[in-house]
Amino acid sequence: MADPIGFIGLGVMGAGMARNILKAGLPLVVTTTSPEKAEAFRAEGATVVATPREVAAAARIVVTCVPDSPALQGVVEGDSGLAAADWADGLLIDCSTIAPSEAREAAARIGAAGARMIDAPVSGGAKGATDGTLTIMVGGEEADIERARPVLEAMGKNIHHVGPFGAGQTIKACNQLMVAVNLMGACEAVAMARSGGVDPDVMREVLSTGAARSGVLEMHAKRYIDKALDGGFRAELMRKDLGIAATIGATEHRAQPATTLAHQLMTAACNAGFAKKDSAALGLFYDLMNGAEPQE
Amino acid sequence: MADPIGFIGLGVMGAGMARNILKAGLPLVVTTTSPEKAEAFRAEGATVVATPREVAAAARIVVTCVPDSPALQGVVEGDSGLAAADWADGLLIDCSTIAPSEAREAAARIGAAGARMIDAPVSGGAKGATDGTLTIMVGGEEADIERARPVLEAMGKNIHHVGPFGAGQTIKACNQLMVAVNLMGACEAVAMARSGGVDPDVMREVLSTGAARSGVLEMHAKRYIDKALDGGFRAELMRKDLGIAATIGATEHRAQPATTLAHQLMTAACNAGFAKKDSAALGLFYDLMNGAEPQE
Amino acid sequence: MADPIGFIGLGVMGAGMARNILKAGLPLVVTTTSPEKAEAFRAEGATVVATPREVAAAARIVVTCVPDSPALQGVVEGDSGLAAADWADGLLIDCSTIAPSEAREAAARIGAAGARMIDAPVSGGAKGATDGTLTIMVGGEEADIERARPVLEAMGKNIHHVGPFGAGQTIKACNQLMVAVNLMGACEAVAMARSGGVDPDVMREVLSTGAARSGVLEMHAKRYIDKALDGGFRAELMRKDLGIAATIGATEHRAQPATTLAHQLMTAACNAGFAKKDSAALGLFYDLMNGAEPQE
Amino acid sequence: MADPIGFIGLGVMGAGMARNILKAGLPLVVTTTSPEKAEAFRAEGATVVATPREVAAAARIVVTCVPDSPALQGVVEGDSGLAAADWADGLLIDCSTIAPSEAREAAARIGAAGARMIDAPVSGGAKGATDGTLTIMVGGEEADIERARPVLEAMGKNIHHVGPFGAGQTIKACNQLMVAVNLMGACEAVAMARSGGVDPDVMREVLSTGAARSGVLEMHAKRYIDKALDGGFRAELMRKDLGIAATIGATEHRAQPATTLAHQLMTAACNAGFAKKDSAALGLFYDLMNGAEPQE
Repeated sequence: MADPIGFIGLGVMGAGMARNILKAGLPLVVTTTSPEKAEAFRAEGATVVATPREVAAAARIVVTCVPDSPALQGVVEGDSGLAAADWADGLLIDCSTIAPSEAREAAARIGAAGARMIDAPVSGGAKGATDGTLTIMVGGEEADIERARPVLEAMGKNIHHVGPFGAGQTIKACNQLMVAVNLMGACEAVAMARSGGVDPDVMREVLSTGAARSGVLEMHAKRYIDKALDGGFRAELMRKDLGIAATIGATEHRAQPATTLAHQLMTAACNAGFAKKDSAALGLFYDLMNGAEPQE
Repeated sequence: MADPIGFIGLGVMGAGMARNILKAGLPLVVTTTSPEKAEAFRAEGATVVATPREVAAAARIVVTCVPDSPALQGVVEGDSGLAAADWADGLLIDCSTIAPSEAREAAARIGAAGARMIDAPVSGGAKGATDGTLTIMVGGEEADIERARPVLEAMGKNIHHVGPFGAGQTIKACNQLMVAVNLMGACEAVAMARSGGVDPDVMREVLSTGAARSGVLEMHAKRYIDKALDGGFRAELMRKDLGIAATIGATEHRAQPATTLAHQLMTAACNAGFAKKDSAALGLFYDLMNGAEPQE
Repeated sequence: MADPIGFIGLGVMGAGMARNILKAGLPLVVTTTSPEKAEAFRAEGATVVATPREVAAAARIVVTCVPDSPALQGVVEGDSGLAAADWADGLLIDCSTIAPSEAREAAARIGAAGARMIDAPVSGGAKGATDGTLTIMVGGEEADIERARPVLEAMGKNIHHVGPFGAGQTIKACNQLMVAVNLMGACEAVAMARSGGVDPDVMREVLSTGAARSGVLEMHAKRYIDKALDGGFRAELMRKDLGIAATIGATEHRAQPATTLAHQLMTAACNAGFAKKDSAALGLFYDLMNGAEPQE
Repeated sequence: MADPIGFIGLGVMGAGMARNILKAGLPLVVTTTSPEKAEAFRAEGATVVATPREVAAAARIVVTCVPDSPALQGVVEGDSGLAAADWADGLLIDCSTIAPSEAREAAARIGAAGARMIDAPVSGGAKGATDGTLTIMVGGEEADIERARPVLEAMGKNIHHVGPFGAGQTIKACNQLMVAVNLMGACEAVAMARSGGVDPDVMREVLSTGAARSGVLEMHAKRYIDKALDGGFRAELMRKDLGIAATIGATEHRAQPATTLAHQLMTAACNAGFAKKDSAALGLFYDLMNGAEPQE
């Protein structure tokens, strides 16, 4: 029988990812504070233990997928944390979106416990997590990634080894900053179209095959125009990810004026009441700036 | 024999467009101050006359494709301008990229001469102009556009009637602002990738299928990474187009923080010596901001 | 008896300025569409005529103080405009705030009528206009300014000849852009103080003697903190002036990222409902961006 | 004899501050890795010890004045750090400029050692440090500040208790962000004046009494115009302080678009070669953006 795989972080993304590990026929060990989730995963064949430390005791390879760096610290540090386990030959696959510097801090603690770590943030949303079609951007040593590959392939469709440890987080930050910057452009284009008497959907279609085409124009602008902003990737999470991108740039003394502008506007959009909506709700903040009632 | 078509503005774009009118079997009347161009077009079968006014005297339908609004004024106004012709039943197809308000001013003068006007800015670059594969965004009355259609179809592949007069320019402004805003994001992502030890081409490829995908990431970022910045759509023209987009927004009292930021950075890039390079040379200005020698 | 002085534009600023010309003992000729204003000025000893043209016919020196460039065009152009007068040896003192390029257009028309022009925008607000304590920034030829000096000194306390024609508008634009940019800083500092548990008035006082001191921190920030935002210099006028500053920069191909950001935010503040309030109401838009109910 | 006062951080600012403690007649205990500084301070009557821990062992009240938070951590943490001392009844007066959150972390460690802490960042530059005329912005408990008052009064002229612990850092961040934002405005105004044919010094003087007046227009703009940019407060330190201000805002989810824009431009100015010059060298980066050779 195959070695068990540990999984910590059974949220919207993580639950789907963990189930795909089970579906791939790999034994699964999880921990959760939710009795309902515990029961559900037990019913599906997973072993449920009490703490991250016990996960590491039971599984040499552990996947984490948590909302932010403090959450990862909570999983790694402390008496019941991963790093408290006797985890020689362990491997942590961290699928959270955090800063490369935060990833390095976690890796240092994991390393002190005798284990290794790769960073493997994902994109593709809740649907991709459920369907096992995520794109996974992996940073780390080749040998570690080969060892992780069966797990990564259970969770995602496109597994990209993009560089050394931290490179996965770097690429994820690139992705998020471009989505948010492109989103500003799309919101400003929608407003210009409307103001000039052009149906924004016509604008989207006409420009969807030229140089201005983008995933954001196709998907996010559509959601904003259609007021289909419930569910999706929340504006407050995009704000967090833009905070990461801004921090990376500040740490490395790079100028990122568009990324930081997007961070400011996404922050304002969250404060204006749109934090729990899809990040395309940035358009609703543009409506406010342009004197229109946001049409939710 | 078909009615002749007039064409004014035999620049990089216009020369190709005019030739495609000829190739479609339509008689062509042009005017140019360049003896070489006059001779070339005469050799290809066009009639060459001395002034825009004579073009309008010879052709009820005239296409203009000039760099900016002052150039269009030069063609329309004055004793030898289009509006000085007895141009009853005339139709002006303006393919220049100018502000909707500037287009309306030209239409008023054309109207005083008894003619009508549609705005029909194009995208697709010099190659699209030569190949007859331009996208044309047309604003105006349905009847005028139907009348223009054979000419439009000679020049482009995708002819979109996007709304009332001025709507073509509005859509073109949407296109340009999104390209420039997306370009800021792409430049910041390339710098982040490099700084994080990731090959920027790997970043481009990994992200080319997800939410961050865009025409700019595919094409402009590639040109910047490959230092293939000669030719193409010049940064100074993008600066002009962003000036148009900024002016539209200011006139309509809309907030366009990303568009205006892009305008500022493109202006700085031009001033830093990159005005004649492809607009993707914005990346070279980012290099300056990030302390790297721009690698042309 | 002294030559009469003409005055056009009896608004909040202009009415006070015109009265100070009367108080200085100079004969005054005005025109107004308001019967009440006509009666009031007649009662105070002014001559009231029907059109700008008649003002120029009656007065070799004319002062204009109107809200924007289209308003000035309305005064200068047309059959009843200043330029339609036989105005040899005339002198126009324009106290409006407009772009240098717009001033040059007006000067060309005035020149065609045989007259000369200086630009003389003011600062100091309605109170300064009433008290005759305005600061006046004058651009033009020395001889013209000497001729205008008695009128200028009737209206203002500090008369600065700052350069050639247009230089007055340039300096006024410098003034407005710095006020607006400093205002962004002050609003962000007030929010930071509040958020950090510091009374914003304490912040103002502690910093009022150091490097961060400014007229804006003293006056505008105080008005915002005290919610004393009625009256004053309206946000929509500041938006207009920032539009002028932005246009000057764009025309001259200069990068002005802070000025344009201020223009964007002031536009958004106007659209959010604060157009008629003092420009310090920008702070109320910051409240919106920061999730607080604007406390008017 | 009075209790000895400890001092750690004998840099440009700290050396002057420490000497003023000596001049006030208070016994001084310092630590430094520089033999020259050790000898100099010993010659002036100070006691020199080997580590921060020994400083705390010898002095119940200790002042720190270091460049950033990692430097403060180096002083506080570890076997030879302040927090390793048996420091019951100790009081740390931290004059460094760091984030409030970083100050709180230090306070927690200091508290674990039995001591208390106040934050007391300063402004007034090297000259103020030498002359004992600094402005000191103090956050903390009233009793702690009273205990610190003799030391604070030895170092500064204006001692402001501005709020609870951290409030001093908040006010310092307000100061720095306003200086930098005002500096963007001043640089853009200087460029506009020059471009409009106005002597920038005339612009400064004319506007120095009106609403646009500021410490930055008086001092920083003067230094930029006069190319007197050596010495002073270095651009790289302003970049650091803007990074603090940006981080505070991001942590508190506030929108600070002007502060972050200033941070981006100051970063670019540092990268463009002006990191070691006075922060007014931001103007030299504006020169680059405007196509002028920076005139150092």
